[in-house]
Amino acid sequence: MDKERIEFLKKDYIQGFPAYCGFEVDRVEYGIFETRLNIRQEHTQQDGFVHAGVIATMADHTGGYAAYTTVSENFRILTIEFKINYFKPAVGDVIVCRSEVINKGKKIIASESQVFSISQDQEKLVSKAMVTLMAVPVSAFT
Amino acid sequence: MDKERIEFLKKDYIQGFPAYCGFEVDRVEYGIFETRLNIRQEHTQQDGFVHAGVIATMADHTGGYAAYTTVSENFRILTIEFKINYFKPAVGDVIVCRSEVINKGKKIIASESQVFSISQDQEKLVSKAMVTLMAVPVSAFT
Amino acid sequence: MDKERIEFLKKDYIQGFPAYCGFEVDRVEYGIFETRLNIRQEHTQQDGFVHAGVIATMADHTGGYAAYTTVSENFRILTIEFKINYFKPAVGDVIVCRSEVINKGKKIIASESQVFSISQDQEKLVSKAMVTLMAVPVSAFT
Amino acid sequence: MDKERIEFLKKDYIQGFPAYCGFEVDRVEYGIFETRLNIRQEHTQQDGFVHAGVIATMADHTGGYAAYTTVSENFRILTIEFKINYFKPAVGDVIVCRSEVINKGKKIIASESQVFSISQDQEKLVSKAMVTLMAVPVSAFT
Repeated sequence: MDKERIEFLKKDYIQGFPAYCGFEVDRVEYGIFETRLNIRQEHTQQDGFVHAGVIATMADHTGGYAAYTTVSENFRILTIEFKINYFKPAVGDVIVCRSEVINKGKKIIASESQVFSISQDQEKLVSKAMVTLMAVPVSAFT
Repeated sequence: MDKERIEFLKKDYIQGFPAYCGFEVDRVEYGIFETRLNIRQEHTQQDGFVHAGVIATMADHTGGYAAYTTVSENFRILTIEFKINYFKPAVGDVIVCRSEVINKGKKIIASESQVFSISQDQEKLVSKAMVTLMAVPVSAFT
Repeated sequence: MDKERIEFLKKDYIQGFPAYCGFEVDRVEYGIFETRLNIRQEHTQQDGFVHAGVIATMADHTGGYAAYTTVSENFRILTIEFKINYFKPAVGDVIVCRSEVINKGKKIIASESQVFSISQDQEKLVSKAMVTLMAVPVSAFT
Repeated sequence: MDKERIEFLKKDYIQGFPAYCGFEVDRVEYGIFETRLNIRQEHTQQDGFVHAGVIATMADHTGGYAAYTTVSENFRILTIEFKINYFKPAVGDVIVCRSEVINKGKKIIASESQVFSISQDQEKLVSKAMVTLMAVPVSAFT
C-alpha cells in the first residue's frame, strides 16, 4: 500500500460514530488494521465493564477497514453481518482491536477481529468477531 | 411484572454507553423491550448511513434488557455472543429496536432484536440480531 | 411460482447429502420451504439427542431452498455463512424445519430457519438459524 | 491428557451421525481435535461441492470434542450455538477439520474450527466456524 492510501484510511476511519466513541488507529497494512480506545466512563455498561456495544463497534469498524485496505479506491466496504463472542468482561484503561482479512473473495471479504483489554501491561483476549463484508463500487453510492 | 421493576429497568437501561449514544426506552413487558434513537451526525459512518456499531449496540443492549425482564432481582445479564445481519443501509431520522426473548433456559437466554429505520412514517427492517445471554447471580459480582 | 418450478425444487432439494440424511419436503411457496426428517439412530450424537449437525444441515439446506424459490432459473444459491442456536436437546420421532426469506437483496438473501421436534403431537422449537446466501448466475458454474 | 482418555475420546467421537458421515480422527491433544473425511458422492450438494451441512457438522463436532478434551470425565459438552463462514466451494478427495479451544470459561467454552479441502497435496481453507459450548455435569443427564 502506498503511504497516501494509508494516511487516507487512517483519517477516514475516524469520523461519525467511531470519532464519537474515541477510537484511534495504531497500525495499517495490507489486510490488517489495528485500533485503540482509552476507556472512559461513557464506554461502560450497568456493571462497570466496557459495554458489549463498544467492543462490537470496534470489532466491526476495524474489521471493515482491514477489508478496506485490500480494495482499490473504486470500492467502499459495507458490513453484511458479523458475529462476536465475549469471553471475559473487559476492564482496565485501554482496549485494542486487531483485525485481519482471512478471506478475500471477489465481492465478499471476511475479517476477524480480536479485542484485548490492557491492564497493568497485561493483555487479555476479551472478545473475538468474524465480520462478513461486501466491496461495493463507489459508483453504486451516487 | 410490577410497575416498580419496569421503572427500574427503564432507568437502568440508560446509563454509560447507551446513555452516551442517546437511546430511549419505548416499551417494557415480560420478555419484551423496545427502544428508540434519534439519529444525529455522530451516529453515522463514512457513507452517511447509521453506523453498524450503533445498530449492533442497540440490538445487543435491548436484547439484553428483554432477557433482564425475565429474571428476578437476584440476577444480572451478560452477553455471551451475538450475531447481526444488515439488510439495508439505515437512513432517516429515527431508528427503533424491538427485542423479544425467544428461548429462556435456566441459565442461557436467547433474544431476537429487530431494528427498523423510520422515514416519513414508513418503517423498514434494516437489521436483525440473535443475542445469546447468560443470567448471572448478583452475588457473583461482589 | 408455477407448478413445474415447485416440482423441480422439491426434487432438486433431495440429492447428495440431504438425500443421504433422509430429509423430505413438506411445503414450497415463494420465500418459504418446509422439510421433515424421521429420526433414526444414525441421526443422533453421543447422548442420544439429534446431532447438532443434522439440525444445522436441515436449517442451512432448507433456508437455502427458501431463497431458491425467490430467484429465476438463471441463478443458483450458495451459502455465505450461517449461525444457529440450540435451545433444547432434540428428541422424538420427527423434526421439521420451517424456513422463510426475511430479506431479499439483489445478490444477498437472508433466510431464517426454525427447527421443531415433534413428540406425541407436541411441537417444540429446538433450534433457530439465520442463513446468509448469495444468488450466483448459473453461467458462473460452467 | 492420559492415553486412556485420548483413546476414549477418539472412539466416542465416532458414533451416531458422525459415524454415518464417515469422519475419522487424526489428532487429539488438550484443547485440540483434528479430523478427516474422505469425500464420497453422498457428501455433495446440488452443484457437486461438499455440502455446507457436512462441513458444518464436522466443524461443530470437532470443535465440541476440542472442548471435551479440556473437561474432566464428570462433564459432557453441548453446543449452545455456532456460526460458520464458507469461503470457497469445497472440492477434492479429502477435507480436514482443525479445531482449537480459544477460550475456556468455567461453564462456557469457545472453540474455533477451520476446515480445509485437500486436492493434489494442496490445502485450501474453505470454511471457519466459532462454536460456543457448555460443559454440563454428567449427573444432569441421568
